[in-house]
Amino acid sequence: MFSADDLSSLRWDSTSGQVEIIDQTLLPHTLRWCHLANLADFCHAISAMQVRGAPLIGITAAYGLACALVDDASDDNLRAASDRLTATRPTAVNLQWALDQMAQSIGALPESERAAAALEKAHALRAEDIATCERIGLNGAQVLPSTDGSDTLNIMTHCNAGWLATVQWGTALAPIYQAQAQGRAVHVWVSETRPRNQGMNLTAWELQRAGVPCTVVADNSCGLLMQQGKVDCVIVGSDRTAGNGDVCNKVGTYLKALAAAAHELPFYVALPVSTIDWHCESGTDIPIEERGADEVLSMLGRDATGELLEVRLAAAETRAANPAFDVTPARLVTRLITEVGVFSTNAEGMAALRGAIG
Amino acid sequence: MFSADDLSSLRWDSTSGQVEIIDQTLLPHTLRWCHLANLADFCHAISAMQVRGAPLIGITAAYGLACALVDDASDDNLRAASDRLTATRPTAVNLQWALDQMAQSIGALPESERAAAALEKAHALRAEDIATCERIGLNGAQVLPSTDGSDTLNIMTHCNAGWLATVQWGTALAPIYQAQAQGRAVHVWVSETRPRNQGMNLTAWELQRAGVPCTVVADNSCGLLMQQGKVDCVIVGSDRTAGNGDVCNKVGTYLKALAAAAHELPFYVALPVSTIDWHCESGTDIPIEERGADEVLSMLGRDATGELLEVRLAAAETRAANPAFDVTPARLVTRLITEVGVFSTNAEGMAALRGAIG
Repeated sequence: MFSADDLSSLRWDSTSGQVEIIDQTLLPHTLRWCHLANLADFCHAISAMQVRGAPLIGITAAYGLACALVDDASDDNLRAASDRLTATRPTAVNLQWALDQMAQSIGALPESERAAAALEKAHALRAEDIATCERIGLNGAQVLPSTDGSDTLNIMTHCNAGWLATVQWGTALAPIYQAQAQGRAVHVWVSETRPRNQGMNLTAWELQRAGVPCTVVADNSCGLLMQQGKVDCVIVGSDRTAGNGDVCNKVGTYLKALAAAAHELPFYVALPVSTIDWHCESGTDIPIEERGADEVLSMLGRDATGELLEVRLAAAETRAANPAFDVTPARLVTRLITEVGVFSTNAEGMAALRGAIG
Repeated sequence: MFSADDLSSLRWDSTSGQVEIIDQTLLPHTLRWCHLANLADFCHAISAMQVRGAPLIGITAAYGLACALVDDASDDNLRAASDRLTATRPTAVNLQWALDQMAQSIGALPESERAAAALEKAHALRAEDIATCERIGLNGAQVLPSTDGSDTLNIMTHCNAGWLATVQWGTALAPIYQAQAQGRAVHVWVSETRPRNQGMNLTAWELQRAGVPCTVVADNSCGLLMQQGKVDCVIVGSDRTAGNGDVCNKVGTYLKALAAAAHELPFYVALPVSTIDWHCESGTDIPIEERGADEVLSMLGRDATGELLEVRLAAAETRAANPAFDVTPARLVTRLITEVGVFSTNAEGMAALRGAIG
């Protein structure tokens, strides 16, 4: 049986009084837990992408700040540590959000109480993230399509929005884990998610670890699998969702949404409500990050001896473009699955969602 | 200015009296021309995929048969050589077609005349393939969308259907080469075409060699580029097209066709009429080849020293599926571009195309 406690990307070791994280840069080849003993360790873990995924980055930064205050809880050090953590991934919204939460809860306390309070707050943020993802999973499991009794439910996903991107459960994968825990037979089509291969490297690895059957496919195969009737629904996460329900997510999401619509398959987006940017009216307002060409032109893997190395795929003079996200218009999104419920992306649904957040 | 004669995948060296081919297994890293001196060389070139692409395989086999008859033009050797060539890629329709053409034109001749006649016939088949592709290019260039004067025409393609897949010009790329030769400013979005990366390895390489500006992108980016207005049309080739206009082509083609339809962009399929299987009523009758999982789970590239090697991408226990083709329904195909003209894929268009073939 599935135990979420065994499947966590970040844990507190009460014996050593330290945080431990999975070094995700080594996945799927090696599982290594790293102790983070001081602020430099935390900053490195975030900047080197040993931890990634917006929620997980935020929680890691919160613990990093708590760690930095143990020896020096002065205002100056609080500000300096916060600035160092912010600089690790300047565009990560959740990182700043978590640090703001920390500052609010300890800034007014006397110095002598800050370190303990900061650790308590980091624990609380971690527990809150786990609870949010668990709710997303429970809400999502209720809307997964039925498959007439004993048939396996075939779910397609993209990129990684699982427990490696959060603390436990994940967002897009949470309903899958809950469905399996409830005794449903599930199988996941994992789109490899070029160019960084988060599907193959992270999603397949974490599903296997949780005992969920899965098959990796080239991103190109996703339309064919629907043509062949091998997909019952699609669930993806979101990096940012506009107030009108347009969903920005890893590039390639939009193609799956188009194919799902063509085959009349449900296309779900699972996300914490914190991902919805109500100030952003529609997806056209969301800037698309352009990343380095080398991510397209090179690939990391193990050679015959098991050593990790990067190989160059293209000819030396080849140019590449590497946009990291695309926008799926709300009309292609069947439902948004959140911790406060499941909502349509039409005007009424988005208004109801906004009301549910309160 | 573009010279098609310099851009050929297979040439006749009249000095040595031998065929030379580009070893495509070394592309894009190394350009090596190989002399094919005897039947074993020809068989190896086809089975090891030094040559690939249905038309090129056929022409190579024709020359291989001619070569085999130089020393022994008996019926027995004609049959034995033909059988050896057929066995190199048993499912390649063009290979058998070319060998049948050869047998028809020389089978009735006295042994003493066969070798010379076979070489003449191979030359004729090569010239015919070049002429067919040139016509496809000229016909296609006429229907490419206008871009209001001096703007660059942005064309998206998938896989490799260029002069590396034929002898010269190609099919999908032929209209692009002709447009450039006619003075139009063109730029090609090359979809990398996982899992075998024919876009990055072959298409980008051959376009660069012809001086056509191009940019490689992950297959996942193709919807976004259309969203951003950076694509004017899509042109792809076809492995087999059904009598109703349904197009079977490299997996991932269907997703591009769906996206092109969503953005009201022309989606062209360029193909010789020999690719149309009139016995096949619709695309659902076309079997989809399932290839080995290792093509998804591994990747070939150059290491830091320039050496070619294969790296393993996924964890050891990861399962993968690798369907090689998908079917784009005729309703998503704007036009078929052939050597006998350009046709709609509705019932009238397909009837007109059949009539034009005569």
